[in-house]
Amino acid sequence: MPEQNPLAPLDPAQPTGPTGPTDPVEPVETVGPSSPLDLAEGDPFGPHNLPYGVFTRPGHGYPERRGGVRLGEFVLDAGAAAAALGSPYVSLLAQPTLNPLLAAGRTAWSDVRRALTAWVTVPAHREVVEPLLHPLSEVTLHLPFEVADYVDFYSSENHARNVGRIFRPDAADSLTPNWKHLPIGYHGRSGTVVVSGTDVVRPCGQRKAPADPAPVFGPSVRLDIEAEVAFVVGVPSGMGTSVALSDFREHVFGLSLLNDWSARDLQAWEYVPLGPFLGKSFATSVSAWITPLEALDAARVAPPERTHPLLPYLDDSAESAADEPGGYDLRISVAINGHVVSRPPFSTMYWTAAQQLAHMTVNGASLRTGDLYASGTVSGPGESERGSLLELTWNGRDPLDLPDGKRTFLEDGDVVTLSAWAPGPGGTKVGLGEVTGRIRPAA
Amino acid sequence: MPEQNPLAPLDPAQPTGPTGPTDPVEPVETVGPSSPLDLAEGDPFGPHNLPYGVFTRPGHGYPERRGGVRLGEFVLDAGAAAAALGSPYVSLLAQPTLNPLLAAGRTAWSDVRRALTAWVTVPAHREVVEPLLHPLSEVTLHLPFEVADYVDFYSSENHARNVGRIFRPDAADSLTPNWKHLPIGYHGRSGTVVVSGTDVVRPCGQRKAPADPAPVFGPSVRLDIEAEVAFVVGVPSGMGTSVALSDFREHVFGLSLLNDWSARDLQAWEYVPLGPFLGKSFATSVSAWITPLEALDAARVAPPERTHPLLPYLDDSAESAADEPGGYDLRISVAINGHVVSRPPFSTMYWTAAQQLAHMTVNGASLRTGDLYASGTVSGPGESERGSLLELTWNGRDPLDLPDGKRTFLEDGDVVTLSAWAPGPGGTKVGLGEVTGRIRPAA
Repeated sequence: MPEQNPLAPLDPAQPTGPTGPTDPVEPVETVGPSSPLDLAEGDPFGPHNLPYGVFTRPGHGYPERRGGVRLGEFVLDAGAAAAALGSPYVSLLAQPTLNPLLAAGRTAWSDVRRALTAWVTVPAHREVVEPLLHPLSEVTLHLPFEVADYVDFYSSENHARNVGRIFRPDAADSLTPNWKHLPIGYHGRSGTVVVSGTDVVRPCGQRKAPADPAPVFGPSVRLDIEAEVAFVVGVPSGMGTSVALSDFREHVFGLSLLNDWSARDLQAWEYVPLGPFLGKSFATSVSAWITPLEALDAARVAPPERTHPLLPYLDDSAESAADEPGGYDLRISVAINGHVVSRPPFSTMYWTAAQQLAHMTVNGASLRTGDLYASGTVSGPGESERGSLLELTWNGRDPLDLPDGKRTFLEDGDVVTLSAWAPGPGGTKVGLGEVTGRIRPAA
Repeated sequence: MPEQNPLAPLDPAQPTGPTGPTDPVEPVETVGPSSPLDLAEGDPFGPHNLPYGVFTRPGHGYPERRGGVRLGEFVLDAGAAAAALGSPYVSLLAQPTLNPLLAAGRTAWSDVRRALTAWVTVPAHREVVEPLLHPLSEVTLHLPFEVADYVDFYSSENHARNVGRIFRPDAADSLTPNWKHLPIGYHGRSGTVVVSGTDVVRPCGQRKAPADPAPVFGPSVRLDIEAEVAFVVGVPSGMGTSVALSDFREHVFGLSLLNDWSARDLQAWEYVPLGPFLGKSFATSVSAWITPLEALDAARVAPPERTHPLLPYLDDSAESAADEPGGYDLRISVAINGHVVSRPPFSTMYWTAAQQLAHMTVNGASLRTGDLYASGTVSGPGESERGSLLELTWNGRDPLDLPDGKRTFLEDGDVVTLSAWAPGPGGTKVGLGEVTGRIRPAA
C-alpha cells in the first residue's frame, strides 16, 4: 500500500512537475492525504520516472489488459486517461501490450512522456486523472510487451573474470581471448520470459560431475540467479543493415531489471560446444515496468576505460566525447527472502547497451519491435557486489549466512528480488521496477 | 512451369487418389492435359503429399496472404476451396499464416488433410477446385507461419565427428563427452528466419586467425551452408511441464528443409564460451512448404543403434518397438548453382526429432505454436554425403570442382538449393519443398 506525504498537500498554484505553470484553475476538491497524486517527497516513482507496464483489475471489472504508467504505488490507466483528455495517444496507450508504443519511435516516445507528465502534474487534469489511478495492490501486472528475440550478453568484466577463475583456475588469463574485442552474447528462449512475480519451477535435467561415470537425471541442485539489466527494442531495423552506435536511442525504448535464472549443474554438462541451453531456458524473469531511457538521462555515465583498441563499429569514444556516454549508473540490490545479499553496480559494465546493439546487428541481423537483450550478470569488483550465487559463494565453497540459514544455491521456497535505483534529475532517485520470483519444487 | 502427363487424362470415373469411388457425376468439361488436377504419374507433390504454405497473387488481385496447399506445380487456395465446398475448416485455412492450423491439434490436422485429399481427388469437387489451383509461377510464397522460438540441434554423429576432427585434431575423441548422452542444441534468432527464395546478404563481422595479432573487420570470407531438416511445433505446452517421447506427434505438425547459413570465420572467433551468435544470426532459410508428418508415415525408420545407454526420458527403444520409429528416411540433395555437391541422408541422424523435443522441454521450458527446431547439419558417412562446405572441402583444404570453377566457401552470386524426397505410400515419392537462396555481396 502507498505511503502518503502529509507535507505535500494539493496546491494547484504550484505544479509539482517540470511542466511549469498553467492557467489558474479552480481548486479541485481534495481527498486529503490519500490522493495518489500527492507523493511522498523523493518518491522514486514520481513524475520524473513514469515507467510503463500492462495491467488488469480482475476484481474490479477490468479483465482486459491495458497499458499503464506507474506513479508511486499506483498505476495510471494511461489509455483511459488519454481518451478522457482527448489525447491523440489513445492508439498507443489503450492497448493490451506496449508494442504499439514501442514501435512508434523516439519522437512519439518523447511526446507521450511529455503528455503523461502533464496529466499527473498539472492541476487542471487532476479531476480526470485521479480516479484513473489504481493501487498496485488491486491490479495484476502482466508481461508488458510481446518478446520477439531474447539475447543475453556477458558484459561484466568482473563477472567474466570470476567465472574464469572458478572454472578455469589454471588458465593464464581468466578472460577468453575474444572478451575485450566484442560483447559476447547468445540467444535465449523468448517463450519463457515471464513477468516479475511468476513462480519458477526448479528445472530437471542431466548433470554429471567430472568424476561421475555417467550423467544422472533429477532436479537441479545448483539453481542460481543472474542479476541483469535488459534493454527493450522499439524500432525495428531491416535485414542486411546494421545499427550504428549513435543510433542506439532511435531504436531502444527503455530498460528493465532481469533475472536470468540458471541451473549451473545442467549448464556445466551441456554447454560445450554450443553454449547454454536447458540450464537457462526454463525461465527468465523481467520486471513488469519498462523505464524509458528518457527517465535515465541523469544516470548516464562513461563506461570503464577500454584496455584494448576497439574496431570502429564498437569504438564509443566519439559518443562519450559528444556527451552521450554509454553507461548507466544503476544501483542494483539482490535480496533472498528479503535479506540483501549483494549490491551490483551497473556502472561497472565494460560493454554498453549501445555497443551490444551495434554488435548484434553488424552482421545484418534485423531488429524487431519487442526484441529484448540483457547485459549479462552484473558484478562489481567488490565481494558484496556480485550478481550470482556462483560468484557470491565461489561455486558453493563459501556459503552465505542468511537469517534463515546458510545458502550455497537456491532452495525451494526461496524468494529472490532484484531492485534498483538510478540518479534522477535534481538529486531525485529513479526507481526501477523490481523483479521477484519464488522457487517452486521440481515437478 | 508445370509438366503435365498426357498419359493421365481426366477420367471422373477413376479417382486418382486414395479416397475411393464416389457417386457418379456428370463428366465435367475437361481442359485437356493442362488441368492441374491431372498430375504426371509419380509426381512427388501428388495427393499423397499436400504440403502447406502461404501465398499471394500480387499480379492477380490477391494481395492478401492466404493458406495454400501444393499439388504438383500448382497451389490450391485452400481457404477459398473450404469456403466454396462449405467446409468447417475455413477458419483454419483462410488465414494469413498457418498458425491457426498448427494450433488446432492432431485430430484437426488429420481431418483437414482428409478433406483436402478428397477435394483434389474426388471428381465431384473438380469443377469447384480446379479454378482455385494457381500455377506456382504466378504466386509469391511467404514464410508460412510466425516463428516463435528457433532452436538448432547438432544431432548428426558424422557431422559432429567431422567438425571435431577438423577443429580438434589432437583430441582423443572427436565427440565432446556429452554428445552421446543428450542432443546438444542452442537457440537461434527467429527474427531472421526467412522463406526460401530470399536473398542472403554476405554478413560482416570480426574474425581473427590464431596467428593474427588482433581481430579484423570485414565481409565473411568463409560463408557456408548447413543442410538441415526443421520441425514445426503446433500444439503448445505449459511452463513447468515436459513432453514425453510418446507425445511427439501430439505437438509437432510437420517438417521442412532448412539452410542454416553460417559464417565460419565469425563463428570461430566468437563462439567460446557461449556458442554461435553472429556467425549464424544473419539469416536462416526455410522452405515455403511444411510437409505434415502424416504424409511421411511410410518414411519412418529406426534411428542408428545407440552406443550409449540413454536416460529414461530419451530412451526411445519402447517407441521403436511399438512401430513408432523416430527416424525419417529423407534423401536430401545440396546443389550450388544447379550442380549437386552432396546427398545427405537424414536417416543417419543419431538423435531423433522426438528426442530433441523431449530434451528441449525436460527442464520445464514451454512450447509455443510456431516453435521451430532444426536437426543440425545432416551428414552421412560418405564423403559425398556431407551437409556443409566446411566438411565437403575439409575446412577449405580440398576445394570442390564445380562447372563454374572451384569452391571452398560460397562466392557472391552463388545460389544454394536444398531439395529432398522421402518414400511415400505404395512406392511413391514424397517431395519436400526446396530451400533456395542467392548470396548477395556484403552491404
